[in-house]
Amino acid sequence: MTEEVKRVYAFGKDADGNNVTEGNTNMKPQLGGKGANLAEMANIGLPVPPGFTITCQTCMEFSNAGNVWPEGALDTIHQYRLDLEKRAGKQIGDPDDPLLVSVRSGAPISMPGMMDTVLNLGLNDQSINGLIKQTNNPRFGWDSYRRFIQIFSDVVMGIDGDLFENAINVMKNDRGVKEDTELTAEDLQELTDEFKRIFSENVDPEKYPELAQDGVAHFPQDPMVQLKLAIEAVFGSWNNPRAILYRKQNKISDDMGTAVTVMAMVFGNKGDTSATGVAFTRNPATGKKEFYGDYLVNAQGEDVVAGIRNTQPISTLKTTKGLEKAGEDLEEVFSILESHFHDMMDIEFTIEQGKLYMLQTRVGKRTAQAALRIAIDMEKEGLITKDEAVMRVDPDQLDQLLHPQFDKSKKYDILAKGLNASPGAAVGEAVFSSADAVAAKEAGKKCVLVRWETTPDDLAGMIAAEGVLTSHGGKTSHAAVIARGMGAPCVCGVEALKIDADKKEAKVTGTDIVIHEGDTISIDGSTGNVVLGAVDLVMPGLSDDLNTVLGWADEFRTLGVRANADNPADAQRSRDFGAEGIGLCRTEHMFLGDRKQIIQSYILDDSEDNRKKCLADLLKVQTEDFLGMLKAMDGRRVIIRLLDPPLHEFLESPRALDVEIAHMEDNGAPADEIAAKRKLMAQIDAMSEANPMLGLRGCRLGIVYPDLNIMQVRAIMTATCQLKKQGLDPQPGIMVPLVATEAEIAMLRDQISKVIADVFEEQGVEPFDIPIGTMIELPRAALAAGDIAKHADFFSFGTNDLTQTTFGFSRDDAEAAFIPTYLDKHLLPVNPFATIDDRVLELIHIACKRGSETNPNIHLGVCGEHGGDPDSIKKFNNVGVHYVSCSPYRVPIARLAAGQAAIQHNRGKDYFRDK
Amino acid sequence: MTEEVKRVYAFGKDADGNNVTEGNTNMKPQLGGKGANLAEMANIGLPVPPGFTITCQTCMEFSNAGNVWPEGALDTIHQYRLDLEKRAGKQIGDPDDPLLVSVRSGAPISMPGMMDTVLNLGLNDQSINGLIKQTNNPRFGWDSYRRFIQIFSDVVMGIDGDLFENAINVMKNDRGVKEDTELTAEDLQELTDEFKRIFSENVDPEKYPELAQDGVAHFPQDPMVQLKLAIEAVFGSWNNPRAILYRKQNKISDDMGTAVTVMAMVFGNKGDTSATGVAFTRNPATGKKEFYGDYLVNAQGEDVVAGIRNTQPISTLKTTKGLEKAGEDLEEVFSILESHFHDMMDIEFTIEQGKLYMLQTRVGKRTAQAALRIAIDMEKEGLITKDEAVMRVDPDQLDQLLHPQFDKSKKYDILAKGLNASPGAAVGEAVFSSADAVAAKEAGKKCVLVRWETTPDDLAGMIAAEGVLTSHGGKTSHAAVIARGMGAPCVCGVEALKIDADKKEAKVTGTDIVIHEGDTISIDGSTGNVVLGAVDLVMPGLSDDLNTVLGWADEFRTLGVRANADNPADAQRSRDFGAEGIGLCRTEHMFLGDRKQIIQSYILDDSEDNRKKCLADLLKVQTEDFLGMLKAMDGRRVIIRLLDPPLHEFLESPRALDVEIAHMEDNGAPADEIAAKRKLMAQIDAMSEANPMLGLRGCRLGIVYPDLNIMQVRAIMTATCQLKKQGLDPQPGIMVPLVATEAEIAMLRDQISKVIADVFEEQGVEPFDIPIGTMIELPRAALAAGDIAKHADFFSFGTNDLTQTTFGFSRDDAEAAFIPTYLDKHLLPVNPFATIDDRVLELIHIACKRGSETNPNIHLGVCGEHGGDPDSIKKFNNVGVHYVSCSPYRVPIARLAAGQAAIQHNRGKDYFRDK
Repeated sequence: MTEEVKRVYAFGKDADGNNVTEGNTNMKPQLGGKGANLAEMANIGLPVPPGFTITCQTCMEFSNAGNVWPEGALDTIHQYRLDLEKRAGKQIGDPDDPLLVSVRSGAPISMPGMMDTVLNLGLNDQSINGLIKQTNNPRFGWDSYRRFIQIFSDVVMGIDGDLFENAINVMKNDRGVKEDTELTAEDLQELTDEFKRIFSENVDPEKYPELAQDGVAHFPQDPMVQLKLAIEAVFGSWNNPRAILYRKQNKISDDMGTAVTVMAMVFGNKGDTSATGVAFTRNPATGKKEFYGDYLVNAQGEDVVAGIRNTQPISTLKTTKGLEKAGEDLEEVFSILESHFHDMMDIEFTIEQGKLYMLQTRVGKRTAQAALRIAIDMEKEGLITKDEAVMRVDPDQLDQLLHPQFDKSKKYDILAKGLNASPGAAVGEAVFSSADAVAAKEAGKKCVLVRWETTPDDLAGMIAAEGVLTSHGGKTSHAAVIARGMGAPCVCGVEALKIDADKKEAKVTGTDIVIHEGDTISIDGSTGNVVLGAVDLVMPGLSDDLNTVLGWADEFRTLGVRANADNPADAQRSRDFGAEGIGLCRTEHMFLGDRKQIIQSYILDDSEDNRKKCLADLLKVQTEDFLGMLKAMDGRRVIIRLLDPPLHEFLESPRALDVEIAHMEDNGAPADEIAAKRKLMAQIDAMSEANPMLGLRGCRLGIVYPDLNIMQVRAIMTATCQLKKQGLDPQPGIMVPLVATEAEIAMLRDQISKVIADVFEEQGVEPFDIPIGTMIELPRAALAAGDIAKHADFFSFGTNDLTQTTFGFSRDDAEAAFIPTYLDKHLLPVNPFATIDDRVLELIHIACKRGSETNPNIHLGVCGEHGGDPDSIKKFNNVGVHYVSCSPYRVPIARLAAGQAAIQHNRGKDYFRDK
Repeated sequence: MTEEVKRVYAFGKDADGNNVTEGNTNMKPQLGGKGANLAEMANIGLPVPPGFTITCQTCMEFSNAGNVWPEGALDTIHQYRLDLEKRAGKQIGDPDDPLLVSVRSGAPISMPGMMDTVLNLGLNDQSINGLIKQTNNPRFGWDSYRRFIQIFSDVVMGIDGDLFENAINVMKNDRGVKEDTELTAEDLQELTDEFKRIFSENVDPEKYPELAQDGVAHFPQDPMVQLKLAIEAVFGSWNNPRAILYRKQNKISDDMGTAVTVMAMVFGNKGDTSATGVAFTRNPATGKKEFYGDYLVNAQGEDVVAGIRNTQPISTLKTTKGLEKAGEDLEEVFSILESHFHDMMDIEFTIEQGKLYMLQTRVGKRTAQAALRIAIDMEKEGLITKDEAVMRVDPDQLDQLLHPQFDKSKKYDILAKGLNASPGAAVGEAVFSSADAVAAKEAGKKCVLVRWETTPDDLAGMIAAEGVLTSHGGKTSHAAVIARGMGAPCVCGVEALKIDADKKEAKVTGTDIVIHEGDTISIDGSTGNVVLGAVDLVMPGLSDDLNTVLGWADEFRTLGVRANADNPADAQRSRDFGAEGIGLCRTEHMFLGDRKQIIQSYILDDSEDNRKKCLADLLKVQTEDFLGMLKAMDGRRVIIRLLDPPLHEFLESPRALDVEIAHMEDNGAPADEIAAKRKLMAQIDAMSEANPMLGLRGCRLGIVYPDLNIMQVRAIMTATCQLKKQGLDPQPGIMVPLVATEAEIAMLRDQISKVIADVFEEQGVEPFDIPIGTMIELPRAALAAGDIAKHADFFSFGTNDLTQTTFGFSRDDAEAAFIPTYLDKHLLPVNPFATIDDRVLELIHIACKRGSETNPNIHLGVCGEHGGDPDSIKKFNNVGVHYVSCSPYRVPIARLAAGQAAIQHNRGKDYFRDK
C-alpha cells in the first residue's frame, strides 16, 4: 500500500542555513497550534531550532485503529529524524556531542498543560557523556538523565511517580541531606541506576518486547525506540481524562487529535550567557503596550514555570551582561510577531550561549479589560481594522466587567464549588428561607439566600438577598434564570451542601463545617466558588474602553438588542446598558407577594361577585406596574407578555396540604376545619396537571379565563393613556404566549383589540398603533407561522420553551436527570438550553420565512435565554431575526456579539454559509 | 350595485311541460343536497313538483351581514315566485284554487332533522276557502290552517309552543272530548282565531313593522311576507344550537350554510287515490335488494313520520286500488334512480289523486352490514366498479361489526351516558378496584371495573374485567387507550357517576340510584350507554361480506397494516384480523403485576449485587414474554419497543407516602420505621419530575441505565434463538423510543448490536438480520431524520407523543382542561389526538423525506393511536409512510381505510394534491 498522505512536516533551516520549512500558520488543523506557528516563525526568518511535526490526523488514525501505527508512518518519522540530525549537525545518542530533542504535543486549539511533553530525549548510557562534555557539568548531566528516566517512566510507561520520589528520599536520608540540590553528581549517577532498576521492575516485558532482554524490560537505549514510545504517549495523552474534561468544558471537538513536534533541544543552562523565559508582546492583564514577561539566567524552561528561583523581568534582559544582543533581538522579534500576526502574542524563548531561539508562539490570552485595550490600541496603531478590533473581544468574557467580583488580590479558601449560574459576587449572612431574607433586609442586614432549589415563592427573598445559593438544579434552574434576569449573583447545584431548611443550617459534605443562619458567606456567581466568611469585592463599571468597542459593534450590527425586564429598576439598567427597548416584560412576577392572595381568591372562589372584585383589585395594581415600566422606557417599545404560567402555580402545594390534613385528623381538629381543608384540596387537585409545562397555560388561559386577559390589557392601556395624557410617549406591545394555532391568535387578537379600542375611547385618547403579537415557542407555531403571522404584528421566539418541546426535554428535569450524562457521553455537543440547537434554529428559520411571506412587515425577535448567548446570537443573525432580547446585564454582551455576527456575515462566514 | 351572483335556481317543468331546471346533482355546495337532487330528478324526467332553490351562499351572506338580505335577493325571489305560479298554473293566496308551498332547508351535507321546515305556506283567510273547496274537506282545511299558524309561530316567530297546546287543551275540555281528532271543523276554525290572537299577543310590533297595524302585530296575510319570514327562519336555523352541535359531532364546516327550497305542495290527503311515503331502493338494515319503505293512504308526510297511523309496506302499493299505476311508476323510479346514482337511494314521495310526485332523494344511510352487502351486490350487478365498492363502506362504521353489541331488539333503560371510548359491550358485576376485579375473575364471575380513572396499576383489573367504566377522562385517557388496545369495551367520562371507591359504590346524580359492588351493570362502548342490570349481547364476527370487501381493499392498498399488541392473545387476534405483523409491542406492561416488585427493587436498591439479581429475574420473565409474542407471530415481523416510561411510574405515590409518614409520626410509630419510610420518600422524591412526559424516559433510560436495555435485548435475542433452534422463524425488530438526536441512536445501536452478536454466539445460532430502528415522536427527531436514518433500519412515528410535543399539549391534561373548550370555540377543527393534525403531518412528511434520502431502504410506519383512524390513514398514505399499526380490533378498519386511500390516490384526489 502506497503511503500517499503527508504525515510529517519539517521546519527550520538545513545545514547550509536555508529555510526548509514545509508548513505555515494556517496549517493548525494538521500541525497543531505549536507546530504551525513554529513553521510560521521559521518562514518569517525568526530563529527556531530545527525540528519536524507529525500531523494530528496521524494521531487520530493511530487512536482510531486502537493504537496501531498507520502503515509507513514510522518509516517516514525515521527519515525525518535522520534529516533532522543532518540539519542540526549532531546525532541523537552521540557520545561526544549528542543531539537531544523535545517531544511536545500541540492541538489545533490550545489546551495548555493538558497533554504530555518529553524533554531531553536521546539521553542514554553513551550520550550522557557527550552532554556532560558539552556542558562541562556532570551534575547537570546526571540530573538530566535521571529526570529523563523519571519523566519517561511516568508519561510514557505510566509507572507510579511515587516510586521515584521515594528513591530520592531514601538517598537523601542516606546522605543526610534535606534538599535535592544537595545531592552530588555521583549521587545522581547512582540514582540513575536505581531509576533504571525501578523501570525494569515495573514494566511488563511481554507488553514491551522491544525493551525485553532475558525476560526483563530495560530502559531503552535506542533513541528511535525512545522516540517511538514518546510519540505514542503524546498521541495517547489526547485521550487522557483531564484533556477530555478540558475539551468538554471548552466545547472543543474530540475528533481533532494532537500533533507531535520533535525539535532539537537548545539549552538555557549552558552558563551565564544562556537563559530561558516566557513573554507577552503586551501586558495581558491591562493591555498596556509594554514588554511583559520573565526570564532566568542559566536555566531550563521548566525552572521558570516551577517558580523555584526568582525570575527577572524581561525589561532587564537588554542590560544583562552577555545577553544584550539576545535582548535586542527579542525586542525585534516582538515587533515582527505583532506586525506579522496582528495580535498580542505569547512566546517561549531560550538563549543558548548568547543566541536567541524561539520555542513557541501563540496568540496571547488576556483579560477582558486587556482585550478591549489591545483592540482599541491596535486599531489606532493601524495594525488592525475597526471590524477586526470588534472581533478581538470575546463577548463571553465581558461578563467579568459587568458584575462585582471577588478581589483576586486577597486570599480566601474555597469551601465548595457549584455552577456559575449568574455572574457577580455577593457577601452576606446565610438565610434559609425567603421570609428570613426579607426580614434580614428589613433589619438592614445583607444576606445570601440558601435554598435546596428556589420556587416562584422565593422571589421576594431572592430580591431581598444579595445573592442566591442552591444545592440543586442546573444553569437554567429557576434560581439561575431568575437571578440572571435580576442580575443577582447565583451559584447553584452545590452538591456538597446538605441543606436542612427547618434547622436553618447546611452541612458541607466531607468536612465538619456547618453553615448556620447568620454566618457570613461569600459566593462568586462567575466562578461558582463559595467561601465561608467575607471576601472583599471589587465593583467594575462600563469603562470607556468598553463603551468604545460597543460603539464600534453598534456601527456594524444589524440585529437590534432589547432587554427582558419586569420592573422599572431593571428597565432603567438595561437602558443604561444600551437596550433599545423591552423585548419581554413577564407579568407573572407581578402576581406574587401580597398580590398572590388576590389571584388565589380569583382561582378558588369563582362566584361572579368575588371574581369581579379580584379583577378590580388586580386591575389597580397592574395599572401601577405598567405605569412604572412604560415611564422608565418612555419612547421605546415595551413588549408585555400576558399571563403565562398555569394557575395552580399560585396555589398551595397539594402535598403539604395532604400532610396538614393527616395531622389535623390525628390531632382531632374540628370536623368543619378538616372539611374546609379537604374542599381546598379537592379544588387544587382538580387543577393539578401531570405535565404542567404542556397544560393549561399561556394563551390557553386567555381562552379558558378570558377575563384575566381582558384585565391585563385594560391595565396596560389605562397606564398607556394616562402617560399619553401627561405628554409622554408610551410604546407598549401586547404579546400572547404559547400560541399553537392560527385560530388562537385570531380569536385573542380580536379580544385584545376590542379592549384597546374601548380604553382609548373611555380615556378620551386619540387611538394609536398598539402592536399585538405572539410568542413562537411551540414547534407547531413555527410550522404554522405563515397562518399565525396574518394576525400578528410581531413574533418573539421563546427559545426556552421551543427547545423543551422540540427536544421533548423538560428543562427542570433534564438538566438534573440526564443532560449532564449526555454531555459526558458526547450525546450533545452543548447544553441546548444554553446555546441554540441547530434543529430548533431550523424551526426559527422556517417560522421567519413563512411569517414574512404572509406578513412582510412582521417584526421578529428572540426573547429566550439564548438571546443573551453570543454563539446563539451569531446563529440568529442569519435566519431572519430582527432583534434579540436578554437580561439587562447581558445587553452589552449581546451588542458585541451582534456586531461580530454582522462582521462575520459581511465576510461571508456566517452560520448557514459555513455549513 | 349590479346583482351578478345567481342566487335562485328553478327546477321542474313549465306550464307547457318543458323541463326548465337550472341545477343538477353536482351543485350540492350551492343548492344543498335536497335542492341539487330535486333538480337532478327533474333533469332525468322524474315527476317533481315545480319549485326553486335559494343558494347556501345567500344564507351565509345573510347570516354574515347580521341577518340582512343581500341587495336584490328579495327581488329575485319575488320573480321566481311569480314564475312558479305561472308554471304551477295556480297563485299563492288564490281563494279558489290556491298554490301552497313548502319551504325546506337543505345543506350541502345532510343534517337530518336539524333545521326547520314550513309547510302549507300560502294559507290565509282567503286561500283557506280554496283549500276547502279543492279537498272538499273543511276539517282538513281548518286543521291545516291552524297547524300552519302554529308551526309558523313556533319556527318563524319563536313563540312558545305550549301556548298553542294549552289553547287546544282548553277547547278539548270545553267540548268534553279527549282527542284532537274529535274536534270538529268549526272547533278548529275557532281555534284558528284563537291562535291568531296568541300570535298577536306574543309578537312585538316594533320588531316586525311589516306585521303591525294599529300598534298590534297580526298574523301575515300577504304570502310574500310569509315567504320572506319563512326563508329567513330557515336561514337562521343553520345556526340553531342543535345544528351547531350536530355539525361539531359530525365534523361538518360551519361555513357552508343551508339552501332553501320552495316547492309547490302536493297533497297525499286528497282521498283514497292519494298517499304519501318514504322508501329505500334496497333494505338499509341488511342491504338486501328489495323494496323497502312505508306509505299511508290519504295522508300528509308528517303523518308517516309521526307514527300515529299504521303504515303499509311499500310492496303492497301496486295492488292497492287506485294506486296501481303510481306503484308501478315508483318501481320504475327505483330502477332509474339506482342506475342513475349508482347507489342505494332514500326517497320521499307523495301520490296526489293517482299521480306520483318525488319530493326528495338522497343516498340512503345504511348499517355497516348493509353497506357491505350493497357494495358487493352492486359490483356484481355491474352498477359500480370494485374500487367504487371499496369506497362505499365507511371504515368508522366497521367498528359495529367487530365487537359484541347490545341486542337492539330487546328493551332496556339507559341509566347514564358517557363517551364511547372503546367499542363493544360488556355485562358483569360492578367492582371498584383492580384487586376486586381480579378476585371476581378468579371466583368465576364476570365483572365491570368501575373507576374514577384508571392508572397503570389497574391493568390487572382491566384484563380481568369484561369492560371498564370511568367517571373521568376523555377518549384518550388511560382507560380508553388501554381498553382500545386490548379490544375491551370502555365507557369513560360518565360525569353522572359519583364514585366512592372506599365504600365500593357509585351514586348516579339526579337519581336515587346507587350502584353497589356486585350489582350487575351493562355498558356499551360503541354508544357510551350504561344500563343497570343485564342486557343481552349479540356477538358479530368477521362476516363473509366483510372478508370480501377487505380482500378487495387489500388488492388496492399500498400501505401495510400491522397491529399494536403486547401479549400473545392480542397478537393472535390481530393476525386473525389480517395484521401483517406487530408494529408496536410495548414492554412496560410486562413490568407490572408481580414483576413490579422486581423493578422497584432494581430502582431503589442500587447495590451491584441487588441490581444483578433483579436483572437476572427480569431477564427470565422477559424471555418468556418474547417467546410467547414471537411464537404467536411466527414468520412475521414483531417490532419490540424498549422500556419507555419514567421509572418513577413503577414506584409508590409520594403523596400517599407523605400522608402515611404523617400518621406514623402522630401515632408514635418506631423511629426506625419512620426513618425507613423517610428514606424511601427521599429516593422517590429524588426521582420525581415536574414534567415526566419530557423527562428521564424513552431512550434516555437506556443511556442512563444501560443495563435495563441490555437485559431487554438479551431477552429478545434469547427467545429468538430458542425459537430458531426449534425450527421456527422468529422475526423480531428492536425499537428505541424517544430519540431526539443522531448521537443517541448511534450509541444505542452500537450497544444493542453488541448484545445481539453476543447472544447469537452464546446460543450458537447463525446470525441473521435483526432490524434496529427508532420511534420518531419528537419534533427534533423528525427534523433530524436524515441523520438519525443513518443508524436506523426503520422509523415508527409515535404520533401521540409527536402531537403532544408539536402542540405543547399534554394529552392527559389537555383533553380534560381545554381541548373541549377549544372544540366548542372552533379553535381546533378536530381533536388532534384522534385525527392527525396537518402540521404534525408535515413533520412526518419531512422525516420520511429526509430519512429516505440518507437511507433509501428505511422502512417507515406509524404506531400511534392515529394508525387506526381512517381520516389519518388517508393522510399518511401520501407522505411516504409504508405501513400503519393499530390496536387489533382496528386492523380491519385500517385495511379498508388504506384501500380507500390508495383508490383516492389513484384517482388523483389524495391529501396533498387536494390542498
